[in-house]
Amino acid sequence: MTVSLATFRDEIDALRDVGALFYENRWSLGTSSNYSIVLKHEPFQLLLTASGKDKRRLGPTDFVLVDSQGKPLETTTEKPSAETALHLVLGQQREVRSVLHTHSVWGTILSDLYAAAGGFWIEGYEMLKGLAGIGTHEHRQWVAIFPNTQDIPALAGTVRQRLSDRDNPLRHGFLIQRHGLYTWGRDVHEARRHVEIYEFLFEVLGRRLSIPLKQPI
Amino acid sequence: MTVSLATFRDEIDALRDVGALFYENRWSLGTSSNYSIVLKHEPFQLLLTASGKDKRRLGPTDFVLVDSQGKPLETTTEKPSAETALHLVLGQQREVRSVLHTHSVWGTILSDLYAAAGGFWIEGYEMLKGLAGIGTHEHRQWVAIFPNTQDIPALAGTVRQRLSDRDNPLRHGFLIQRHGLYTWGRDVHEARRHVEIYEFLFEVLGRRLSIPLKQPI
Amino acid sequence: MTVSLATFRDEIDALRDVGALFYENRWSLGTSSNYSIVLKHEPFQLLLTASGKDKRRLGPTDFVLVDSQGKPLETTTEKPSAETALHLVLGQQREVRSVLHTHSVWGTILSDLYAAAGGFWIEGYEMLKGLAGIGTHEHRQWVAIFPNTQDIPALAGTVRQRLSDRDNPLRHGFLIQRHGLYTWGRDVHEARRHVEIYEFLFEVLGRRLSIPLKQPI
Amino acid sequence: MTVSLATFRDEIDALRDVGALFYENRWSLGTSSNYSIVLKHEPFQLLLTASGKDKRRLGPTDFVLVDSQGKPLETTTEKPSAETALHLVLGQQREVRSVLHTHSVWGTILSDLYAAAGGFWIEGYEMLKGLAGIGTHEHRQWVAIFPNTQDIPALAGTVRQRLSDRDNPLRHGFLIQRHGLYTWGRDVHEARRHVEIYEFLFEVLGRRLSIPLKQPI
Repeated sequence: MTVSLATFRDEIDALRDVGALFYENRWSLGTSSNYSIVLKHEPFQLLLTASGKDKRRLGPTDFVLVDSQGKPLETTTEKPSAETALHLVLGQQREVRSVLHTHSVWGTILSDLYAAAGGFWIEGYEMLKGLAGIGTHEHRQWVAIFPNTQDIPALAGTVRQRLSDRDNPLRHGFLIQRHGLYTWGRDVHEARRHVEIYEFLFEVLGRRLSIPLKQPI
Repeated sequence: MTVSLATFRDEIDALRDVGALFYENRWSLGTSSNYSIVLKHEPFQLLLTASGKDKRRLGPTDFVLVDSQGKPLETTTEKPSAETALHLVLGQQREVRSVLHTHSVWGTILSDLYAAAGGFWIEGYEMLKGLAGIGTHEHRQWVAIFPNTQDIPALAGTVRQRLSDRDNPLRHGFLIQRHGLYTWGRDVHEARRHVEIYEFLFEVLGRRLSIPLKQPI
Repeated sequence: MTVSLATFRDEIDALRDVGALFYENRWSLGTSSNYSIVLKHEPFQLLLTASGKDKRRLGPTDFVLVDSQGKPLETTTEKPSAETALHLVLGQQREVRSVLHTHSVWGTILSDLYAAAGGFWIEGYEMLKGLAGIGTHEHRQWVAIFPNTQDIPALAGTVRQRLSDRDNPLRHGFLIQRHGLYTWGRDVHEARRHVEIYEFLFEVLGRRLSIPLKQPI
Repeated sequence: MTVSLATFRDEIDALRDVGALFYENRWSLGTSSNYSIVLKHEPFQLLLTASGKDKRRLGPTDFVLVDSQGKPLETTTEKPSAETALHLVLGQQREVRSVLHTHSVWGTILSDLYAAAGGFWIEGYEMLKGLAGIGTHEHRQWVAIFPNTQDIPALAGTVRQRLSDRDNPLRHGFLIQRHGLYTWGRDVHEARRHVEIYEFLFEVLGRRLSIPLKQPI
């Protein structure tokens, strides 16, 4: 049985809408970012933005369908994103149906400021309740930061290990230094909500750091 | 006599419009925020956004109708917002017809910087005249900040008390620490104007604090 | 011969468009701001936004027509803006056909920082060439700041005097402390361009002040 | 054979779209900026925004067609931009088909802060890969800054020299002090991508400088 982009019009439209929104929010400028939806887990099928597309106005054919190894499931002239391996690792988590990767100004700045520490805590904000499974603002979220690399399979291996780390598993999302945010969710709505929550909190932390007051007033 | 969402299409459309606007202004990202309109004071009936809805595109059924105790007035699968108790206390003020709650970056930052002081003054700005009943910029507005809590009924009790405090009554709005703004008005237009006024002034104060000058030049 | 709003549909539409644009740019939040177009100089007739209107979606009747004394030229339930006197003084300059008043965050902050100095210089920016009659970036523009007051006729008197000051005439626009910007032009397009030029430059100066570097790098 | 604007409707529409987008992004306020598309290299024909047009809503006739000397190729009442000479020098590079010039707040600030140094480095950011030919974030991009001048032909001469400088050729774009960004590309899409990449990175650098931390945390 063959698969074809034409079959997944709703999923494609959902990602086109995400693209237009994130472009407008300046989280996906300059053809950066890539987005995916898991179509099936068994056998694994992923719908993914093709490489180098303008997110402002994604066209209906600016996507590829790939299997669990990242191989195209149909004949296409489009290239999968260079970061396909990360989408595969994140999308193969059982409860995940969408992976969104963005490039924002505040995420980039924080990913650099806290790179040496390997990440930073976000604590005590009501908005944390927008992350799936967090029921109170009395929560401390670690935002891990990985060094940037062009060796995406190696990074994907590290991420895979950290997802199943018993003591300190990656949850909801992470940053790559001077690069951007990866987050995921049960569906594209939840993944988008996670982007919005992280970006809001990154902006709060970044603007707070811009105020030259060590202590509250 | 039964009530039904279908009866209140204009009110629903007004709140849907508020949602799209506040989402775009980044005051209601990540399904945060909730909005209400008082339909009647006697007996009390409130139209309120249902829990966890995306404010970018609120649907016509993303609302609940509740009575003075927060109990749904019609059969629904939607849950009232966790913060219903605050909408009830604020909406039950005689002259109030709408309550709007938002989550902004600058509001979050100021709510944290001034939390220990219990609030902060805004003084001398022309924009203060946008708050109902303020006729001159020569006015000093206290913005109270309450500690955040997941015990909303308790917070609602505190707010109720402060609304009728003879010496220092809450007026127009207040902040919850690391959480957001509550404001209200005679109708949804006035409540929205209050959001805009507060958010403008929060941004002025926050950006001013970001300039490392203790004194004017 | 009577005048009626219905006669001036193009001018009204031009100001409605300005309102939607300035609201979106956050220069006219919370029903702040007012805009006018001079319809005739002899006898003087001014089209002016009515008091307290939401600039996001100005309606076709959210305007008043006034004479050189600010008296309505037709029967209306709308009130002229409290700041009509400033529009009259500015609009009665021979070459002026439009006056725009806005409330921006950066304008508010600068109007406060430099109030004691009575204003500030903007110098050497290419964008200064967007002010009518300025042909080179090698120009120094003084932005006068007046103390805020609710006595608009008194302020209008001061402004009238400064417009005809031989040594140091007001040109293009001025700020009122903690209040906002007034600017004007030969037509509504030029006046809007002046708003954009000033707001751009205010943002440049305000953000530059936010960088804790006394000297260039 | 005559040429006429009517022949180049697609190219005109592409630049009108750029104008609306850049205006909205606040990179082309106040009739600033100019954009061009190379129609042919032999003989050289350039489509260029006419002088002083509002970029928010460029009309189909707000353009001029010029030859390699900047002379109009058809009878027109429009004036070519004062900066035509720069578009000619940049557009005459063999592989270039579009030149975009913008005025942004962060570009203006950085162009001033680093003017004495003649430019600044951008290094290690993933977004650098959005510049044509850059395949890794492990790249160091020099952003040259030229002093502003009203003598555009002289500046164009300097730029021409620097484009063919063997040791340190200008690549992708440059800034003019207190003025704005010039960038170019193989087509208008690539040139626009370069604007977005530069503006993103300028904002990252500018906001990073606004955080009073010399070292990462």
